[in-house]
Amino acid sequence: MTVAERKPDKTLEAEMRALGQAARAASFVLARAKPEQRSAALRHAAAAIRARHGDILEANRRDMELAQNDKPSAAMIDRLMLDDRRIEAMAHGLDEVAALPDPVGTILAEWTRPNGLVISRVRVPLGVIGIIYESRPNVTADAGGLCIRSGNAVILRAGSESFHSSRAIGECLEQGLAEAGLPKHAVQLVPTRSREAVGHMLAMNEFIDVIVPRGGKDLIARVQSESRLPVIAHLEGVCHVYIHAKADLEKARKIVLNAKMRRTGVCGAAETLLVDSQVAKEFLASLLSDLHNAGCEIRGDEKIRAVDKAAKPATEKDWFTEYLDAILAVKVVDGVDAAISHINHYGSHHTDAIVTEDKNVAERFLENVDSAIVLLNASTQFADGGEFGMGAEIGISTGRLPPRGPVGAEQLTSFKYVVRGDGQVRP
Amino acid sequence: MTVAERKPDKTLEAEMRALGQAARAASFVLARAKPEQRSAALRHAAAAIRARHGDILEANRRDMELAQNDKPSAAMIDRLMLDDRRIEAMAHGLDEVAALPDPVGTILAEWTRPNGLVISRVRVPLGVIGIIYESRPNVTADAGGLCIRSGNAVILRAGSESFHSSRAIGECLEQGLAEAGLPKHAVQLVPTRSREAVGHMLAMNEFIDVIVPRGGKDLIARVQSESRLPVIAHLEGVCHVYIHAKADLEKARKIVLNAKMRRTGVCGAAETLLVDSQVAKEFLASLLSDLHNAGCEIRGDEKIRAVDKAAKPATEKDWFTEYLDAILAVKVVDGVDAAISHINHYGSHHTDAIVTEDKNVAERFLENVDSAIVLLNASTQFADGGEFGMGAEIGISTGRLPPRGPVGAEQLTSFKYVVRGDGQVRP
Repeated sequence: MTVAERKPDKTLEAEMRALGQAARAASFVLARAKPEQRSAALRHAAAAIRARHGDILEANRRDMELAQNDKPSAAMIDRLMLDDRRIEAMAHGLDEVAALPDPVGTILAEWTRPNGLVISRVRVPLGVIGIIYESRPNVTADAGGLCIRSGNAVILRAGSESFHSSRAIGECLEQGLAEAGLPKHAVQLVPTRSREAVGHMLAMNEFIDVIVPRGGKDLIARVQSESRLPVIAHLEGVCHVYIHAKADLEKARKIVLNAKMRRTGVCGAAETLLVDSQVAKEFLASLLSDLHNAGCEIRGDEKIRAVDKAAKPATEKDWFTEYLDAILAVKVVDGVDAAISHINHYGSHHTDAIVTEDKNVAERFLENVDSAIVLLNASTQFADGGEFGMGAEIGISTGRLPPRGPVGAEQLTSFKYVVRGDGQVRP
Repeated sequence: MTVAERKPDKTLEAEMRALGQAARAASFVLARAKPEQRSAALRHAAAAIRARHGDILEANRRDMELAQNDKPSAAMIDRLMLDDRRIEAMAHGLDEVAALPDPVGTILAEWTRPNGLVISRVRVPLGVIGIIYESRPNVTADAGGLCIRSGNAVILRAGSESFHSSRAIGECLEQGLAEAGLPKHAVQLVPTRSREAVGHMLAMNEFIDVIVPRGGKDLIARVQSESRLPVIAHLEGVCHVYIHAKADLEKARKIVLNAKMRRTGVCGAAETLLVDSQVAKEFLASLLSDLHNAGCEIRGDEKIRAVDKAAKPATEKDWFTEYLDAILAVKVVDGVDAAISHINHYGSHHTDAIVTEDKNVAERFLENVDSAIVLLNASTQFADGGEFGMGAEIGISTGRLPPRGPVGAEQLTSFKYVVRGDGQVRP
């Protein structure tokens, strides 16, 4: 976005550092702005997206043309492509984020010490966030919007496929900031497609406080191994549904079909079904038949294939796999503890569900499955910031440290301690 | 501690991985234990330290003898040395941690969605913590105790100087765990002095969830640059006191003397004093004279040296320096904004204080100084988990992401989302 302002003789590293410095400076202003100003920036950005709708489509057309050289898959084209509906969805998303409660400055806790000191834990932005993503241009608006809401400056590194589209959207965010009287450098796009730029971002611990990678396994792996900065990583979702012996079987049927087939490409889609050995074979056969009828391939262990002749054999690798497709690995397990062990060993600590009417078994599962989200009698596809009531989300963090689970505006903040005294000194 | 159990032909890497695996397994048991069991382990460990007092002193004597080869400084000897009082302090500390509220399982928030799903955010341990420290053997008891309280397994890598002392203390923690029916591998010491072991710890992301370095700048820098794991880092404390034009000057005098001189070697000790240009010269001269009389060296800018002939000249480097000694850098600034800029530029985002009776100026300072702890009219030496009412602490995190500020048992936890439904599927 600010390419024209830079001298051509600057090296990439110097360019990236200039971006970082500008982001740091903007972050202080954005963090101290009034909540209404951040809301106004978001609404102005939404309006700019609607007004510059033609420019965005035109930029997207250029990206789509360039992408043809790489013989893209249909899925890739679908991720990259923008149309009227998707552009309006971005604008609408920004309006929604504008209406979310502003998290900055909230007092999270306050207490008085015996010596009279009053200690408050106050929510503050993280500072500068670096977001590295791939082909979906709408991430520019979604992630940029959440950063503005949470008072963070952001450096966005769009995938090279969506370079022009992301830039056109980024200009709308800049315009929204400027119209609200906020520094436009609060949202900056990396002005090059070079992969080296990512390396610089991962090392700029002076200017970037946290890195959020959004994309496939290879991107996340590169970021996690190279980063000198804290990473909020959305890893894969190898999500499980476990049907316990005391499950309500009609609930189980609805939940399994929804968890697997509602949308197969989302991180909360179920990838493995664990069926208790005490669940009736007739029910199992009819459930698997329903899945086949819905277009789902079944990969089963021996016991499953004894019930379902159409099932393919599952290998060890299947239990670790996030298909993101109409494929389900199915295994028979003996009891809740075997289910828990399987999930903790093969799963990705993302989202896992149990179907049971037995309260004790349910609590055992919910306590012992070591995942960001654990569900009782509900579909894994609820793994989503919106469904949790957080408004938008930037992803679902599968790390152990907070923020864990859906990462919305509130999760992109930290806190500081404010201590008010009247002359106290420490004995 | 478990050296004898290992085969000598194992490589260091395999040894470290075995440690990691044992820690991971123990972490599940410790996390699911009852709070009373964790309390019992801590009390038994305290009793073991008292009972094995002679063994600990003997081990410490060996460390002290070995240390003589390296011509240690007096400060180093002081850090390493244990005596009756210090051993009793460790035992007492463990008893105090045993009495702290157990953080595991607390429901942090709970809400019901329009579709009837009940979502709870529940506190859980982080998992396995790797702690890398230097010469103080008491860190073994303090850090190990906080990990037990928070339900985390821990791998402790003691400094090579305190190898035998730390081991003797570690055995007491093991004994406490065993006597409470908990796995002794919940607390393990790295059984070698090799520096390579640290490298393995920093790469074991399968088995360790977070690394906490405790020590000097070089250690922290190495950990931050090499670690593949999240780091909770306690960086240096370049702490400031700013005396505003409308300060109560008697409060200012007490606070500055306490912040600098109460203990000069702690991270919350003030290192730089900023004095508003409107503060009366006579007061300033008398304050600096009090500091000299208390044994403090003054390094001042030109305006300070005009008032205090005994002051040495401060260089640019002084403004960045954590002396941890009876030395204070002093500068005259024009107004609160200049003070804020100085602190955000030269400080370490640890702990900074303003002395003023002007409420608006105070709030401006508290909001805009970007540090983990900001204080009004109180000494920076309150930067301490105990003084905050958290019981013990493992350090003060100067990172931007949570946990920020004092890290006690509660701050060594994460959370998960537990979602309870009754058959809900996502539309």
